[in-house]
Amino acid sequence: MQIAILLYPGFTALDAIGPFEMISRLPDAETVFVAKESGPVRNDQGNLALVADRTLAEVPAPGVVLVPGSGDWGPVLRDRETLEWLRAADATSTWTTSVCTGSLILAAAGLLDGRRATSHWLALDELKRYGADPTGERVVFDGKYVTAAGVSAGIDMGLHLLGRIAGDRHAQTVQLLTEYDPQPPYDAGSPDRAPAEVVAFWRDEMGRVPAGG
Amino acid sequence: MQIAILLYPGFTALDAIGPFEMISRLPDAETVFVAKESGPVRNDQGNLALVADRTLAEVPAPGVVLVPGSGDWGPVLRDRETLEWLRAADATSTWTTSVCTGSLILAAAGLLDGRRATSHWLALDELKRYGADPTGERVVFDGKYVTAAGVSAGIDMGLHLLGRIAGDRHAQTVQLLTEYDPQPPYDAGSPDRAPAEVVAFWRDEMGRVPAGG
Repeated sequence: MQIAILLYPGFTALDAIGPFEMISRLPDAETVFVAKESGPVRNDQGNLALVADRTLAEVPAPGVVLVPGSGDWGPVLRDRETLEWLRAADATSTWTTSVCTGSLILAAAGLLDGRRATSHWLALDELKRYGADPTGERVVFDGKYVTAAGVSAGIDMGLHLLGRIAGDRHAQTVQLLTEYDPQPPYDAGSPDRAPAEVVAFWRDEMGRVPAGG
Repeated sequence: MQIAILLYPGFTALDAIGPFEMISRLPDAETVFVAKESGPVRNDQGNLALVADRTLAEVPAPGVVLVPGSGDWGPVLRDRETLEWLRAADATSTWTTSVCTGSLILAAAGLLDGRRATSHWLALDELKRYGADPTGERVVFDGKYVTAAGVSAGIDMGLHLLGRIAGDRHAQTVQLLTEYDPQPPYDAGSPDRAPAEVVAFWRDEMGRVPAGG
């Protein structure tokens, strides 16, 4: 099983590395970071670069496709080469997956039309505009399409996928070895429970961002 | 505030990226990945490379030092240049921190003598041998020294640190924006609750690994 994680300028690092650390521990899997060109790809904050070891052309038919999100998803949503690669890879993939606003990229490629899916809580309306049926769930399976909510939700998605592919016992082993026993010091990880004024501030900020920009 | 994240061959990616995604969102902070030489540094599985943008010599006095762990901690524990850099950086740091077996590296540099600290659950005995006082907690503060348990615990540590440095409201905002509302599909993230035979298997495996190797 080949697992391809798509990199593009402005990706959010934890979107990629959270599920990476889980699903790359699949038995007999090869995990590869791919991008239009091989070499370092900078993240959204500009302070991190992950290396794409292969070009898109070198990885035409991965078993698992994973698309991380970005706070600035406009450019990649307009990138024909990336969308075409996604469509081609999806044609033979066993699982096509995304984290955070990565679902907008899958939707822009036409892969989530009418499908139940999720995204970052601030991007659910945008996801609907691209033809998907957004839910507020953290991890959504619709056939072979698996989407996760914002950033850290990719870790949960990775464990779900491991369980589906390799069985519960293997997923539990990876959870134990990565000591994924979360104990956040606050209960502010969802818009339902975060301080109301923080949620309102960010909904307002989002309203000021041009659609798709 | 400058935040330096140490990279070395064989580091575990999520150990670095989990807390990175939290604390790099500190206001007015510059986060830099550092290593003995600048350029790509490969992880423990060999299937990921993160770029060190600066050499250790270029970042002599960061405000926050963060040391990720590795499943193969032997080589870095014997690396004098890295340990000397840690001691020098620690002399002026505001916070000296680690994730997973990164605490063994801090301890090998002599920075955790007699201090309460934590590590990956399979490395707590080793941490004691290096002079620290291991606890089973997920995130441990002892003065300016902050250590996290295995791999994913760095995310929780990052939020704790954000709260201490920038206040609860800022940390809650980052938790909301990274949608850190964990919902693992299993309850197997600690040796207390994972299936007993999985825990026993890994304790046995660990017993076969030469100390420090």
